[in-house]
Amino acid sequence: MPKEHKLQIIPLGGLGEVGKNMTIIRYGNQMIMIDAGLAFPEDDLLGIDIVIPDYSYVTENKEQLLGILLTHGHEDHIGTIPYLLKDIDVPIFGTTLTMGLIQARLKENNINSFKGNNVKPGDSIKLGSFKIEFIRVSHSIPDAVGLAIHTPLGTIVHTGDFKLDHTPVTGEILDIYKFAELGQKGVLCLMSDSTNVERPGFTMSERTVGQMFDEVFRNAKERIILASFASNVHRVQQVIDAAFKNNRKVAIVGRSMLNYATIAAELGYLNIPEGVLLDVDEIVKLPNNQVCIITTGSQGEPMSALTRMAMNDHKKLEIQPGDTVVISANPIPGNEKSVAKTIDQLFKLGANVIYESVAGVHVSGHASQEELKLMINMVKPKYFLPVHGEYRMLIKHGQLAEQLGIPADNIFIAENGSVIEFTKSGACLAGKVPSGRILVDGLGVGDVGNIVLRDRKQLSQDGILIAVIALSRSTGEIVAGPDIVTRGFVYVRESETMLEEAKQKIKQITERCLENGIIEWAVLKNQIRDTLSKHLYEKTRRKPMILPIIQEVK
Amino acid sequence: MPKEHKLQIIPLGGLGEVGKNMTIIRYGNQMIMIDAGLAFPEDDLLGIDIVIPDYSYVTENKEQLLGILLTHGHEDHIGTIPYLLKDIDVPIFGTTLTMGLIQARLKENNINSFKGNNVKPGDSIKLGSFKIEFIRVSHSIPDAVGLAIHTPLGTIVHTGDFKLDHTPVTGEILDIYKFAELGQKGVLCLMSDSTNVERPGFTMSERTVGQMFDEVFRNAKERIILASFASNVHRVQQVIDAAFKNNRKVAIVGRSMLNYATIAAELGYLNIPEGVLLDVDEIVKLPNNQVCIITTGSQGEPMSALTRMAMNDHKKLEIQPGDTVVISANPIPGNEKSVAKTIDQLFKLGANVIYESVAGVHVSGHASQEELKLMINMVKPKYFLPVHGEYRMLIKHGQLAEQLGIPADNIFIAENGSVIEFTKSGACLAGKVPSGRILVDGLGVGDVGNIVLRDRKQLSQDGILIAVIALSRSTGEIVAGPDIVTRGFVYVRESETMLEEAKQKIKQITERCLENGIIEWAVLKNQIRDTLSKHLYEKTRRKPMILPIIQEVK
Repeated sequence: MPKEHKLQIIPLGGLGEVGKNMTIIRYGNQMIMIDAGLAFPEDDLLGIDIVIPDYSYVTENKEQLLGILLTHGHEDHIGTIPYLLKDIDVPIFGTTLTMGLIQARLKENNINSFKGNNVKPGDSIKLGSFKIEFIRVSHSIPDAVGLAIHTPLGTIVHTGDFKLDHTPVTGEILDIYKFAELGQKGVLCLMSDSTNVERPGFTMSERTVGQMFDEVFRNAKERIILASFASNVHRVQQVIDAAFKNNRKVAIVGRSMLNYATIAAELGYLNIPEGVLLDVDEIVKLPNNQVCIITTGSQGEPMSALTRMAMNDHKKLEIQPGDTVVISANPIPGNEKSVAKTIDQLFKLGANVIYESVAGVHVSGHASQEELKLMINMVKPKYFLPVHGEYRMLIKHGQLAEQLGIPADNIFIAENGSVIEFTKSGACLAGKVPSGRILVDGLGVGDVGNIVLRDRKQLSQDGILIAVIALSRSTGEIVAGPDIVTRGFVYVRESETMLEEAKQKIKQITERCLENGIIEWAVLKNQIRDTLSKHLYEKTRRKPMILPIIQEVK
Repeated sequence: MPKEHKLQIIPLGGLGEVGKNMTIIRYGNQMIMIDAGLAFPEDDLLGIDIVIPDYSYVTENKEQLLGILLTHGHEDHIGTIPYLLKDIDVPIFGTTLTMGLIQARLKENNINSFKGNNVKPGDSIKLGSFKIEFIRVSHSIPDAVGLAIHTPLGTIVHTGDFKLDHTPVTGEILDIYKFAELGQKGVLCLMSDSTNVERPGFTMSERTVGQMFDEVFRNAKERIILASFASNVHRVQQVIDAAFKNNRKVAIVGRSMLNYATIAAELGYLNIPEGVLLDVDEIVKLPNNQVCIITTGSQGEPMSALTRMAMNDHKKLEIQPGDTVVISANPIPGNEKSVAKTIDQLFKLGANVIYESVAGVHVSGHASQEELKLMINMVKPKYFLPVHGEYRMLIKHGQLAEQLGIPADNIFIAENGSVIEFTKSGACLAGKVPSGRILVDGLGVGDVGNIVLRDRKQLSQDGILIAVIALSRSTGEIVAGPDIVTRGFVYVRESETMLEEAKQKIKQITERCLENGIIEWAVLKNQIRDTLSKHLYEKTRRKPMILPIIQEVK
């Protein structure tokens, strides 16, 4: 009999947050990774482009990593792959659409070869001691799967992001049989999607959105402009179907919408009837009641096509009075204000905007409470680990599981970096591994830290005042300056007196220092900083960053 | 018969936005003002403290202003008064609590005398040709009123902020009789609150919150910490009532909560049974099940008491496992993320957080669609002007009025600065007056404009790089530098090579310029800026502000 090892689940991202999902499953010295996603920065991460998980634990043990398993093609599940592949060369497994999206992403990052492996829902593979089954689930992108990971110590089920859509737009429904079969045979631990755990009831079927589109298309007299998430291929399919049925042509506008649609169509996930799709330059020549435009900007993103149209700043399209604009999405938390602003602008230009979630033009891709309960009751796990959610969601999901009879001691509310360890006799939280976030700003991965962010914060609030003075090394006299330059602090023309006073103060302080023989520039700089800071605060109640620069002249 | 003048309604704030409400009613050369509120800055107004309406139209005609009428004491209705009174000395009319809050605000601003006039709901006053009636309405602060303004050309009704609460916590309900009587006699124009026009149905009564509090208080085993809006005196009253009934003492924590409670209690709007109120230092000595703390921070404001407790950073209070924390408020749009973060932190510290709006611990202070319809049908105005709302809300409110039979031509979707002009023969939009926003940053009122904001934005995203060089005026040689200082751009220790390269580039450019006899420093600075900008973008994909400073040495 082979030696028995410990089994560990180590989430490196996605716990206590929505985004940058990444989990390690470890048995002995064999590791597999589930998903490698990114997160978009919160408001306080000024200037940061994206956030990826700190995966130093993986790079330090990279020879033990057997493969990466991807549940679906959303950025928060695959967006870290291009970074990871610079450090680790490892096989990647995912469904056809997921792998197609990965390939496009890697190409953008000039990575042209990688060990990609396409799988289908229902497939199973072996990696070391692990046997992995890919299980069909429904989500807001096609080809999403959950995973059953069979290990010598039992089976771990990971739902991925999922909902239970009884009437999906294309393809089959979530594989109820497989989840039930796994449950009947016995599951050690279930990791389940907590994103929508705060919502009671059932999430509506994607198909209901299509029915609403049909109504909107029947009633619209002029052009229809519809914004949604580029990755929601089923949504795009339903727009195309409604357009075709109602004798409208379709143009796809917006870079990411075009990218996704192209990949999805190439791989057979988007079915576009002959002649329906037109170029935007062509479609504008048609009568208004034959026009439908699918575009990006459902989140009010500043550079997106719909936002540009709303701001009258799009190269090819402008809103006309009577246009029907459908925002087929809910604002992601944090985007409420920018979405509202876009809607207001569209109304001002005379469009009829259909936007409320009650209008039925959007449904979520995540399971609500009743679906989450069903998943737990199907899989009947011994241990439960809620994933994909902010802390309160994990708590709530844990409470839900407890209501269904999972003992409180068998429910793990864990953090990124937590090690959940399983042995034959039980399971426990067994310490932590390094984890956290890595900030990506332009080409810099991880070089922006707390000091840079703190400075950006101060600069953003009250700007900066730079005081420059040149001193003679030989005579110890001021040979140039003091000069003052400010940015983001005050409107300079209206503040000349105050800044002139500040100059005088710098001069006095410097001369006094020089007279007293102080040649420690750090001391002089501190005195300038303190005096100016007090002076400017009294005059303005603002606290700009104050930066004294002393140049020594030979 | 006196000469007949035109009647004008001129909104200066509150249209196309939520906040900084201010309206001028003008008849001939007589003006009155309704409300003078502030707004809180949107995210893109970096470093701005508050926003007030541009009221230059009023100061330019200040001899014509007869008085300011206040509907209630919220900041978005009274917050501009301290600024306005520096320019205009004019009588102010409001109910007792409203005037008490104004007085406190003015004291903070060192304005100790002003022409304040207390009125009661039901009172009427005369100002020039205007006769004004104050009409009781319900809202999330006591003593709120709507206004009927009788003019020679007809009656204007302004609802103020309102809801129809059939079972208010104290006092009487909205004066249905008066609104109906006005409607029967004939109303020229109704201005009505659009804040909640996107919500179907009726807004729940404030009293339902009290019933929920009672349940929470009965079930809580340990301390109760409850956060709400400081100005919601009825909410605070209901907490005190629930505490009293369930044998708990109450401590009020947080500066603004204390301020409001003190003023409300002094003026008789808050009824605190003998012995219930304790100082925070006293209450912590009691057993946990006798403790209730009312505090600020329901919006996750960084400096508020609850946020500090959540961050383990409050001077006197820390969260204990088992505490029940009630967030008796909904996040104001834009605050969703910070509220969620506070809730997560509280859960992590072991508190049981009651926060969902479905939990029934909060109701809105604004009328929903059915109440708005009732108001329109009671008042039956000839013309309708939706106010207090973002653009889409005004549109929606207009559509509601149209459904109730107001002709579309008689509904004005106006903007700040619009002049709605009434004559005997009709009404129309008649041009615009100056309007807009004034940004307040510290002591500066209006001095921060687009240039300063644009700089703050750039600084916040990629920081700043300052290049300093001293040149000899006589020899035309570099006598000190180039030196480079950066803030918020890169972590300097890891970027030494790049910055050293940048220095070399500056040196080369400068020497070349000097050799070529270029002594226009603007030309040199531009060359430095362009070269560095390109160099740094290539290396980092970031665009810091680049600030070349040249000092001339004698």
